[in-house]
Order: sequence, then structure tokens, then C-alpha cells
Amino acid sequence: MSGWLAVIGLGPGDPMLLTPQAQAALAAADALYGYGLYLDRVPARDGQSRHVSDNREEAARAAAALARAVEGANVAVVSGGDPGVFAMAAAICEQIEAGPEAWRALDVSVVPGITAMLAVAARVGAPLGHDFCALSLSDNLKSWELIERRLDAAATAGFVIALYNAISRARPWQLGAAFERLRRHLPATTPVVFGRAVNRPDERITVTTLADADPVSADMATLIIVGSAETRVVERPGLPPLVYSPRGVRA
Amino acid sequence: MSGWLAVIGLGPGDPMLLTPQAQAALAAADALYGYGLYLDRVPARDGQSRHVSDNREEAARAAAALARAVEGANVAVVSGGDPGVFAMAAAICEQIEAGPEAWRALDVSVVPGITAMLAVAARVGAPLGHDFCALSLSDNLKSWELIERRLDAAATAGFVIALYNAISRARPWQLGAAFERLRRHLPATTPVVFGRAVNRPDERITVTTLADADPVSADMATLIIVGSAETRVVERPGLPPLVYSPRGVRA
Repeated sequence: MSGWLAVIGLGPGDPMLLTPQAQAALAAADALYGYGLYLDRVPARDGQSRHVSDNREEAARAAAALARAVEGANVAVVSGGDPGVFAMAAAICEQIEAGPEAWRALDVSVVPGITAMLAVAARVGAPLGHDFCALSLSDNLKSWELIERRLDAAATAGFVIALYNAISRARPWQLGAAFERLRRHLPATTPVVFGRAVNRPDERITVTTLADADPVSADMATLIIVGSAETRVVERPGLPPLVYSPRGVRA
Repeated sequence: MSGWLAVIGLGPGDPMLLTPQAQAALAAADALYGYGLYLDRVPARDGQSRHVSDNREEAARAAAALARAVEGANVAVVSGGDPGVFAMAAAICEQIEAGPEAWRALDVSVVPGITAMLAVAARVGAPLGHDFCALSLSDNLKSWELIERRLDAAATAGFVIALYNAISRARPWQLGAAFERLRRHLPATTPVVFGRAVNRPDERITVTTLADADPVSADMATLIIVGSAETRVVERPGLPPLVYSPRGVRA
């Protein structure tokens, strides 16, 4: 008899932003699979096994979790943020498509979560208040030329841009190159938000401009929002500024 | 003495997808402001006033809520989904920028929620598993020419496209025109997902192709995801198909 597999979004890390649906699925699982930093956020429970893997081993993790569920276990695969946004849900689907027929018959579900761009946006106002895109700067699985073409398209069409996977030790120059690329199209005063470890104790949020945006302000835990030409900064006495994109665009 | 104002995301409508942070803010508020359909989702509580307004009166609602908070009340402004995505958080920021100085000194916070595209994506697999954009088809506050330019840019650059505000009685032709526009750029077989009232009792999800996508399948409660040329559909015996966008793009 098959078990089930749920791909679960843990949100930004604060339990106050974990949905009841995610909590319930985590509590009902026999086996948890995930990257160590994410599994560490889930309280241990007797009788529940934990399978830690590196964050570059998504395909192998997905296959192991699927195999375990087909054997009869109720399996939770955890992701930070939302599992459908640059995370484990696509890796699970890829494995199902490529894998044995039995995997297609499995009860698979995805439990959504608060993805990083929504959490960062909420902390500064409403920078995603109008048309926007989400773009991964990782060139492990697509070419850098394609990333540049997407940056060009998004900036010239007026989308606010949320940058995921902006920087890592293995990809140190891409974020600087992306800012350079965006400076071709957007005003120097375009607001840029660096949101690091948002809703966690080591949260750090910086609001700057495209002219001053420095990749040094980012690490692996940082989500970056680059405004459009419409995005505004509202200064407030004794409070951090609000950053927002108006609901309309003047003709 | 000032109160506070929280702009709260109710998620798709299922209480299992309402975050504990949103629940706590709703419980602590003296006054609730919002569109009737959203306020109806919040259980009534003694001593808490409710201020219903039409969904086209966002600016007036934001101003009324801010004025009430400055008078000393703890005010919750509710949005479906995430308040930062085509919703009330930007309307509040606009009013703060344009309003009296006292509004800038107010304790304003945004509580994120599961926005419709994440909920729809979770129900079908991982169509937002790679670069994507969110685009409102409402031409009330921007020109239709700009919407067409953004559709062109997103489709030709390979973004998956989530369409918000796709159709309404006042905007009956825009969705059909958008599909026509996208057919210029994308294969006829591109997967399209109609997600109506997702996670609510009257949920209806349809997976089709761009060639067959018919605006008749959509109403005001429908979020539409148009895949990229990379998006795939995995058929499953006795189960709905999975729709996903792979994590990489072949060179």
C-alpha cells in the first residue's frame, strides 16, 4: 500500500508565518526529507525519521522521498518559503515524469508557503504592488545569456524584479553583473531592497538605490527586489521608509 | 495616542492557509476594514467594528482606515491572498504618501498571505517552478497598450505568466485579447491553468492549452497561469495531470 508525499512550504522561518496546513502535514508525516537548514526548523517528533541532504542534491532527495512514499510511508519534503518557487515541488515533478510508473499513481500534494519576495515586500511596504517578476540568478541550470535577456525584458517592460538565488560562494559575480545590466535600463534612483533572513532573529533589511546597490550587501539568505521606474520611497520621521509600487501607471 | 494599522493577507480563503500571524492581528484589532467578500471570512468578535466597502473603493477605504488608526484604534485592513500583490498594501502606501503628516508617523505593518498564484500552482504541481511574472489584466489604472507590451516581453523572454484580475463584467474582452496576444509568441500546446476559488468549496481547476484556452472558463475568482515553452504536463492514471516548469532551461 502506498503512502503519500507532501511538498511543504515552511515560509520565511518564523513559526507565526507557517500555515496550519503545513503544520498538520508535518505532524502527520512518518519521514521528513530536506536541506539541513530547513529541517532544523521543524520540531523533532518521536517515530518520525529525518533525512538530511545538501541543498545541491535536490534531484536525489526527490527520488529518495518518492521511493519511500511508494513503499508505504507518509513523506514530507520540506522547502523554505514556498515549495513551488525555485524549490522542491518542481524537482519532485521532474522525478515523477522521469521515474517508474508507480510514482505517477502516488498521492502527491503541495502545501504552499509564504515565499521570500512576499515576506520581504511585507516588511518594507508594497514594492510588489504592481506587475512584477521573479527571476533566479543561478546559472547552474540555464545560461547567463538567458538571464541577461530576461533582465532586459523585465526592466524595459516595467516589471518590478525579485531576484532569487542572487549570490553564493560558487556564484560570486552574477549579482554585480545583474545590477550593471539593469542600470542600462532603469534610472539610478530606482529603489532596491535587500531583505536578508526576513522574519528571523538575524533579519537585516536595507533600502538603497540601483546606483548604490552593492552585491556585498547580499548573501545566500538574501532576496533582492529591484523596483520599476514607478516604484516610490516614502520617508517617515523616526521610522524606516516605505517602499511601494503604485497600483496604476500614468499614461 | 495613535493605534496601529495592519494590512492583513487572508490567503485563498481556507482557514488552514491563514497564518498564525494573520490570525493574531485579526484578533487584536478594534476595527476591520475591507471588501465584503473578504470580511465575511473573518469570524465576528464582540467589541470589534466592521467597515465594509466595495472592491473599487480601495483609496477611500485606505484613507478611512488610516484616519481611524491615527485617532487611536487598532485597525486591520483585510485583503484576499497577499495584501502586497494587486491588493490593499499599495493603496495604503499611496494614501500615506499623499495624506497628512500624522499618517507617516503611524505604526503600519503588512502581514503577508498565500497569494492566488501560489495556491493555484500548489494544486496542480509546480508551474511557477522557474522564472515567472505576475501581471494584472485590469486596464483601469494603466493602458491596454502597456499590458500588451508586458505580455509580449514576458512571453518572448520565457517567463511563465500569472494573470490577475483576468476578467470582470466591466472588463469582458481583455482576457481573450491577452490569449490572442500570447498565441503570437508561444506554442499552441503551451499549458494553461484556470484556477477558480482555489481552496474553497467551489474550487474548479482546469488544465488546457493556449490553443484551447477560452475566456468563458474564467470569472472574477479565477487566477490563470500560462506556461512558458518549457512548461510540461505529466499525465497520471486516475489522477489529475501535474503541470510543472523544470528548474533548468536547455541551452
